[in-house]
Amino acid sequence: MSSEIGNKLKVSLFGESHGRGTGVVIDGFPSGIRIDDEKLLSFTARRRPGRDKTSTARREDDIPEVLSGILAGVTCGTPIAAVIKNTDQHSGDYKNISHEARPGHADYTGFVKYRGYNDVRGGGHFSARITAPLVFAGGLCLQYLEQRGIYIGAHLASVAGIKDEKFDPCRVTKEELLSPGHKKFPVIDDEAGEMMREEIEKARLDGDSVGGIVEVAATGLPAGLGSPIFDTVEGRLSYGYYGIPAVKGVSFGAGFGASAMRGSENNDEFYMEDEVVRTRTNNHGGILGGITSGMPVTAMIAFKPTPSISKPQNTVDYVENKDTVISIKGRHDPCVAVRAVPVVEAVTAVVLMDMLLEEGIF
Amino acid sequence: MSSEIGNKLKVSLFGESHGRGTGVVIDGFPSGIRIDDEKLLSFTARRRPGRDKTSTARREDDIPEVLSGILAGVTCGTPIAAVIKNTDQHSGDYKNISHEARPGHADYTGFVKYRGYNDVRGGGHFSARITAPLVFAGGLCLQYLEQRGIYIGAHLASVAGIKDEKFDPCRVTKEELLSPGHKKFPVIDDEAGEMMREEIEKARLDGDSVGGIVEVAATGLPAGLGSPIFDTVEGRLSYGYYGIPAVKGVSFGAGFGASAMRGSENNDEFYMEDEVVRTRTNNHGGILGGITSGMPVTAMIAFKPTPSISKPQNTVDYVENKDTVISIKGRHDPCVAVRAVPVVEAVTAVVLMDMLLEEGIF
Amino acid sequence: MSSEIGNKLKVSLFGESHGRGTGVVIDGFPSGIRIDDEKLLSFTARRRPGRDKTSTARREDDIPEVLSGILAGVTCGTPIAAVIKNTDQHSGDYKNISHEARPGHADYTGFVKYRGYNDVRGGGHFSARITAPLVFAGGLCLQYLEQRGIYIGAHLASVAGIKDEKFDPCRVTKEELLSPGHKKFPVIDDEAGEMMREEIEKARLDGDSVGGIVEVAATGLPAGLGSPIFDTVEGRLSYGYYGIPAVKGVSFGAGFGASAMRGSENNDEFYMEDEVVRTRTNNHGGILGGITSGMPVTAMIAFKPTPSISKPQNTVDYVENKDTVISIKGRHDPCVAVRAVPVVEAVTAVVLMDMLLEEGIF
Amino acid sequence: MSSEIGNKLKVSLFGESHGRGTGVVIDGFPSGIRIDDEKLLSFTARRRPGRDKTSTARREDDIPEVLSGILAGVTCGTPIAAVIKNTDQHSGDYKNISHEARPGHADYTGFVKYRGYNDVRGGGHFSARITAPLVFAGGLCLQYLEQRGIYIGAHLASVAGIKDEKFDPCRVTKEELLSPGHKKFPVIDDEAGEMMREEIEKARLDGDSVGGIVEVAATGLPAGLGSPIFDTVEGRLSYGYYGIPAVKGVSFGAGFGASAMRGSENNDEFYMEDEVVRTRTNNHGGILGGITSGMPVTAMIAFKPTPSISKPQNTVDYVENKDTVISIKGRHDPCVAVRAVPVVEAVTAVVLMDMLLEEGIF
Repeated sequence: MSSEIGNKLKVSLFGESHGRGTGVVIDGFPSGIRIDDEKLLSFTARRRPGRDKTSTARREDDIPEVLSGILAGVTCGTPIAAVIKNTDQHSGDYKNISHEARPGHADYTGFVKYRGYNDVRGGGHFSARITAPLVFAGGLCLQYLEQRGIYIGAHLASVAGIKDEKFDPCRVTKEELLSPGHKKFPVIDDEAGEMMREEIEKARLDGDSVGGIVEVAATGLPAGLGSPIFDTVEGRLSYGYYGIPAVKGVSFGAGFGASAMRGSENNDEFYMEDEVVRTRTNNHGGILGGITSGMPVTAMIAFKPTPSISKPQNTVDYVENKDTVISIKGRHDPCVAVRAVPVVEAVTAVVLMDMLLEEGIF
Repeated sequence: MSSEIGNKLKVSLFGESHGRGTGVVIDGFPSGIRIDDEKLLSFTARRRPGRDKTSTARREDDIPEVLSGILAGVTCGTPIAAVIKNTDQHSGDYKNISHEARPGHADYTGFVKYRGYNDVRGGGHFSARITAPLVFAGGLCLQYLEQRGIYIGAHLASVAGIKDEKFDPCRVTKEELLSPGHKKFPVIDDEAGEMMREEIEKARLDGDSVGGIVEVAATGLPAGLGSPIFDTVEGRLSYGYYGIPAVKGVSFGAGFGASAMRGSENNDEFYMEDEVVRTRTNNHGGILGGITSGMPVTAMIAFKPTPSISKPQNTVDYVENKDTVISIKGRHDPCVAVRAVPVVEAVTAVVLMDMLLEEGIF
Repeated sequence: MSSEIGNKLKVSLFGESHGRGTGVVIDGFPSGIRIDDEKLLSFTARRRPGRDKTSTARREDDIPEVLSGILAGVTCGTPIAAVIKNTDQHSGDYKNISHEARPGHADYTGFVKYRGYNDVRGGGHFSARITAPLVFAGGLCLQYLEQRGIYIGAHLASVAGIKDEKFDPCRVTKEELLSPGHKKFPVIDDEAGEMMREEIEKARLDGDSVGGIVEVAATGLPAGLGSPIFDTVEGRLSYGYYGIPAVKGVSFGAGFGASAMRGSENNDEFYMEDEVVRTRTNNHGGILGGITSGMPVTAMIAFKPTPSISKPQNTVDYVENKDTVISIKGRHDPCVAVRAVPVVEAVTAVVLMDMLLEEGIF
Repeated sequence: MSSEIGNKLKVSLFGESHGRGTGVVIDGFPSGIRIDDEKLLSFTARRRPGRDKTSTARREDDIPEVLSGILAGVTCGTPIAAVIKNTDQHSGDYKNISHEARPGHADYTGFVKYRGYNDVRGGGHFSARITAPLVFAGGLCLQYLEQRGIYIGAHLASVAGIKDEKFDPCRVTKEELLSPGHKKFPVIDDEAGEMMREEIEKARLDGDSVGGIVEVAATGLPAGLGSPIFDTVEGRLSYGYYGIPAVKGVSFGAGFGASAMRGSENNDEFYMEDEVVRTRTNNHGGILGGITSGMPVTAMIAFKPTPSISKPQNTVDYVENKDTVISIKGRHDPCVAVRAVPVVEAVTAVVLMDMLLEEGIF
């Protein structure tokens, strides 16, 4: 029963969508790490609503106030706490749906879990707003990792069935990794991106929404990180990715595709290059036996379509215990996967940094 | 760096393929649970090699010796320890490959992680043999859950691209769930099963292997189990599934398919039936906001093809740091997914029981 | 490397003495618990500086601002975050000692641990100020426990060698438990208290300080809480108590005294009273085999004298690596044990509530 | 609810006194550590019953069988499992006391906790026999630490009120630390030891028992280990010590004595010696702010007298819920503290090694 992740680097999230604010405590972040504020803000800005017409018109600054753990731009080694005040709330939009379960949402399951006591305004603790402090934490971790030659980048691999190119699984460069994040719409192939945006806009006009897949890759990781059995890199990352609202599938390397291959096709041949062990293909997604091989770690994260749609839907009133029909108002991203791209990067950074610290690497 | 899973119910695995034995300590199993020995043995027998020509000819009894925690067939509440002695070892088969990285295996990554000190015979701690004590632990958990009306079943959803039927995601019965496990080849549709077996046999004759997908479902879970953010049912189960060798993808409900749907298609409408809140479809896989809805929990687990194939493969000698060619001898399952079916059930049981105990349910 | 405690109820503290503020995130607090604000404030006020001339003249309001997890006075079940802003800071007082190790303080050990990057002003994260949010968290837990008939109280068992009476270990009432906390000076016997105050004042005038012992007791706990081996009630509570600055010893029941007894003297005879199993004496401090017996849990917590004294002391400059002499200025409690009384109660409440939740009791 | 200790180095104990055996799984022990078998056996032999007339006449070999994780005398990095079979059981001795609560024992509390299902023969999982595999685990950790210049030694600081000398808290040498453990009766001053033995023998002849205190010290630890707030060295060690049956008090450095001192007396002055920061006295027990200072870590652990005495005692039958009188038969150590000396060393080693690994030291 926990909004916390991590063993040595503990990231504890709090807050509700329409409460006083959201925030995070990061316990175990090493001392002496110089934080580039501008870089951090520009990273957190990437998940902010309103960057693009494909996302909700709701605007907030999401500027984290750091309360502890960073002094004169350098980490102290003590817990880092940051708070993001909620400034732009339209609680009224949600008033009429308080006991009607929005299909695809956690209204009903949250009601059961919290026995009716949770703050449901705007999704409460289930809101994607909780990813704002998570992205802040991830931004710190990304800087720590980059200072050690580890780069993490993500892009929209697919939206509404339209596919972007993929990262080169063996030879993706730092520039290629980071490039989609610098664009207004995070794809490799801008033409594919344009088509995705059209589909998203079409869905929006239909009062509907679309799903998507985010691809993420991490380069520069040393071989030997992770464990067989239960502390696999895949298991740890997945556990983190499912913390992002709307994720319904996670795979590594060739993923589900591997299940239809033969071994001779799926096995990645090893070879030596400049005294380094490498593989010619990367169906293993940089992980063998739960442990990094030194090749890029690659994953796919599947997002369901935004459950908030304005079309009328059959549902129940879970207090009155009767069938009803719901029409959801308010502003919503027609495709949560778009703004989830930096969140996926953040989670990847948080989990990998925790594992590196745990194993005493760096 | 851990072969242990669980917060309140801790399952700690040990052992190497060609060492003295493998085993498990289960800490936190409640007292007073009557264990049906025969049922337990028949469950553990399901992952045993040699049940069917599609699996390795290696035979062992895999009979767990219980050292503590169970007295006169009833659990004591104290740690349950069980040891499975290794009886059938052909270490000679592996002698010639000791420093040649078998493609798709963890030889190289294990070498880096353990700095060359791990026992590599037969895959050592990376061997699928470690799933024998895991299945023993899962068998205990399954009995605990069944005594509380919770049933878990799995089957081969696909092998080499050939698809089995799927469980009815909304109305699967206990009998339907458990039926594949009682068959020699764990499928719903025996005709599909026959075709799968043919593909497996074909691969074996080619000195090759095939991948597969296992579908698992759990019924009878109360609504309200799990948490938003980081203790989602999806995250916890995934973390466990990746502990099974060869898993490269995990999804829930509509999974990756949801990413190509529209919200109006993917959202599951709620309705009342006999005063219970249900959904008409189950794209959410029984989990919303990380929390169970009371509908069946459904997941897909993708297995890569067995990496051990007898075809010659290019690779490296990671001690000599030079390129070489490897031909793997020995007996190997041409499709690990087949024997993984009860392992998936076991992991599902271990994780769900841990979550139920943690949240004080039952 | 963690400022967090708890398995199911996670209490994560942050902040530095002279930073922007301190605070806490409480993850896992059950939903639906009504919080009495006034009671909470009056509890947190007990550790506040300036209540009495025996404590530092520094004054702050220490009013926690709740950011999440409580709605209209009732807990939501989601993480509760609270921030206490620092308002009264005299950083100047500490400027001249930045690299001189104050004897008995963590200046040098903190410097080594954090490699010189921690905020040392006012003790930074080592400051007793961090107990303010801990007391807030404890106050919430105390209310939860009291609503279930569990009462926790503490008093100064000894200061500078002057002894207070002790709680009746077998029959202490709720009123007797809570009474010292309602006094300005938390003792049972006010005459002893007066003598303690005199000793404290004498030490203060000498530019010196004194140590003390806090006795704490908890009544109303069910028998059966805790575990043999590593999750003993003693081990869990001790782990928490050592989180309070200046604690150097913890014992339960007869404690160190038991080591000089014979078994026939130390063993507590059981008897039946109103169908309840009780003991006639309570040398076991309510815990046998790590598990509660249903008798009051009693512990003694030894505090060293405040290390900040104004007398000149020999020490080192740990940057220049040379011997030097230090004179500590600033305002300091001449006896930390006095204000630690509610902190001991808070830790007791946090740990016991966590254990009760973990074991699914209530 | 856990018989496991450790974050990165997890030590999980199992077994019952009169079951098939006891054992341990050690998860996270680094690879490549050479284990000196003879040294290990000679360490585990120190807690064995029957070394001396002061301990029980029960004899067993307690030879651990290693099932995994060690190959050709070198650790693999994978979990180390060891089993100690029970060979010398006189269950008959305990038959007549099954529902009568032995005063000072966990019969009643265990009955409540495990709802009557635990194996009570010989104390079951509460038996001091469970310390045999713990000592095995500790023996491995001691070798790891010694290879890095860290030495741990303990002795009987007091028995029945008779005091041994204490280790020199500032300048104790490796030889002085290890010397008591090499003696038949683990004291510094053999004359004091002789008097202790006489008191123990006197108690035995009286059908009674005595308590004692064990002093432990660790040298060679780097400064900077541990954390303020909740991961203090004191808190972590205490949590471990309370896992040893019969411990009722733990203190560090001057401990409870510090509570009667003035600050000017208790503060340890720092000085430079050969470019190392040291203190002239060691009232802080090598720990300031929860973090090691580089001075020896010193602790006192108080043991109550063995609760098993042959004198008749009033008690209850907790099944019949009525008062009764009990006379305990069987063989028992009249002073558990004697054999606890190596157990205290073992726990110290397990906890400190876990903390060193966690913080990435070595």
